[in-house]
Amino acid sequence: MFTTRIYYQDTDAGGVVYFANYLCLFEKSWFEYLFSVGISLPEWEKAGTYVLVKNAFLDLIEKLQYGDIINVVTAVKEVRNAYFVLSHTVFKEGKTTTKGETKMVCVNNEGKPKRIPEDFKTKLLLNVSSAQ
Amino acid sequence: MFTTRIYYQDTDAGGVVYFANYLCLFEKSWFEYLFSVGISLPEWEKAGTYVLVKNAFLDLIEKLQYGDIINVVTAVKEVRNAYFVLSHTVFKEGKTTTKGETKMVCVNNEGKPKRIPEDFKTKLLLNVSSAQ
Amino acid sequence: MFTTRIYYQDTDAGGVVYFANYLCLFEKSWFEYLFSVGISLPEWEKAGTYVLVKNAFLDLIEKLQYGDIINVVTAVKEVRNAYFVLSHTVFKEGKTTTKGETKMVCVNNEGKPKRIPEDFKTKLLLNVSSAQ
Amino acid sequence: MFTTRIYYQDTDAGGVVYFANYLCLFEKSWFEYLFSVGISLPEWEKAGTYVLVKNAFLDLIEKLQYGDIINVVTAVKEVRNAYFVLSHTVFKEGKTTTKGETKMVCVNNEGKPKRIPEDFKTKLLLNVSSAQ
Repeated sequence: MFTTRIYYQDTDAGGVVYFANYLCLFEKSWFEYLFSVGISLPEWEKAGTYVLVKNAFLDLIEKLQYGDIINVVTAVKEVRNAYFVLSHTVFKEGKTTTKGETKMVCVNNEGKPKRIPEDFKTKLLLNVSSAQ
Repeated sequence: MFTTRIYYQDTDAGGVVYFANYLCLFEKSWFEYLFSVGISLPEWEKAGTYVLVKNAFLDLIEKLQYGDIINVVTAVKEVRNAYFVLSHTVFKEGKTTTKGETKMVCVNNEGKPKRIPEDFKTKLLLNVSSAQ
Repeated sequence: MFTTRIYYQDTDAGGVVYFANYLCLFEKSWFEYLFSVGISLPEWEKAGTYVLVKNAFLDLIEKLQYGDIINVVTAVKEVRNAYFVLSHTVFKEGKTTTKGETKMVCVNNEGKPKRIPEDFKTKLLLNVSSAQ
Repeated sequence: MFTTRIYYQDTDAGGVVYFANYLCLFEKSWFEYLFSVGISLPEWEKAGTYVLVKNAFLDLIEKLQYGDIINVVTAVKEVRNAYFVLSHTVFKEGKTTTKGETKMVCVNNEGKPKRIPEDFKTKLLLNVSSAQ
């Protein structure tokens, strides 16, 4: 679980979090989540595997404002040879405020698509969420 | 059609446009598109109607890099009483690189949901795209 | 001391942190620093005092990259009736990588300049750094 | 002169442009300015010269809000062997709203400092502003 506060930089003149910034919150959450299950994205890059977003989906349910403290929970929803899907949920005081998903693919140093490396995939499979 | 270049600020260490920044490109495009069909979002705010994103969807097809010149085309896909859907397509040299959609809702000064005002809705309906 | 990691969203195609994003790191750091000395910026806003940046200065000394863990230290450098100056230093593994300053002013609900409120100023004065 | 509008993404919950985003406006302006005097930054990167910001300074004079149309003017203030200084001024309806400077240095493919290449420097020198 990734915990952060909402800062001015996250908001817009409407007084709430700017919609695109939720995807930035998701990135922070999935980095720390994957790290916690043994997948260090910077280490995988050094080994020639880059993880890219192919699709993203975002659902804004409740507003978030300057100063709010939030939790973001990332879970593994689906794992295939060529991609995996992560779900992301933002909570404020236990209440769901935002949901989203990102479909991720792997590319090599030249940006060419590649399968998810076996060790990477195994760690994902061990953590597939049953409660999605 | 909104034309811009890809600047450093749009990219990340992977060498391409950071995925969340496509949503920022979409916002610029929909602002100018709506303005071009007679809907000035800042004017509507002064009149008590705020347009918020409820959902967003993003599909990354081809990479975009520093220095690229791109066009973003926004179209009206669907109009209902309580929401409307815009589609956004990014082109580089005539080729589709990115697609997305945003579902928009209206709120009043207190952030309460409201119907799309009649004049706003009429202008959207006049511009519903038949080719989506 | 504010601790964070460098995520993709902080970097650019040059492979390092995008220069403007250091100011975003500073904001997170000063929010938490001021909060730790009893100054909650969102609470002061509710009471009609908004803190704005008037000037910012930035000095990039060493590069920061994706995955780096950094500490940002904010200190009070100067306090006057109409403004105060904060200094910000980014450290990676104990080494200074970035320095900066922000000169802050207060405005009221209508955006008009105002003196720093007495209680706010007192808390700043108690924390003026002698080692700047 | 670089012309743009202020979009939601540029603003914060204070209702005005977020201070760090001025540096992003500066980058767009200097890219287009340098391009207009024959210096294409992406081309120079392909030739092994990367331009980095070493220092930045920012002075916020008047507020900018959602929907505002602004002009940013970049000028060459100083050129040395190892660095050059650009000044940036934001105008709204002919009135200066923001000023800033960026000190730029060159590095090679490995990120090592290098002199400004002769052809690059010559083009800068031809455009040094006398009216700063």
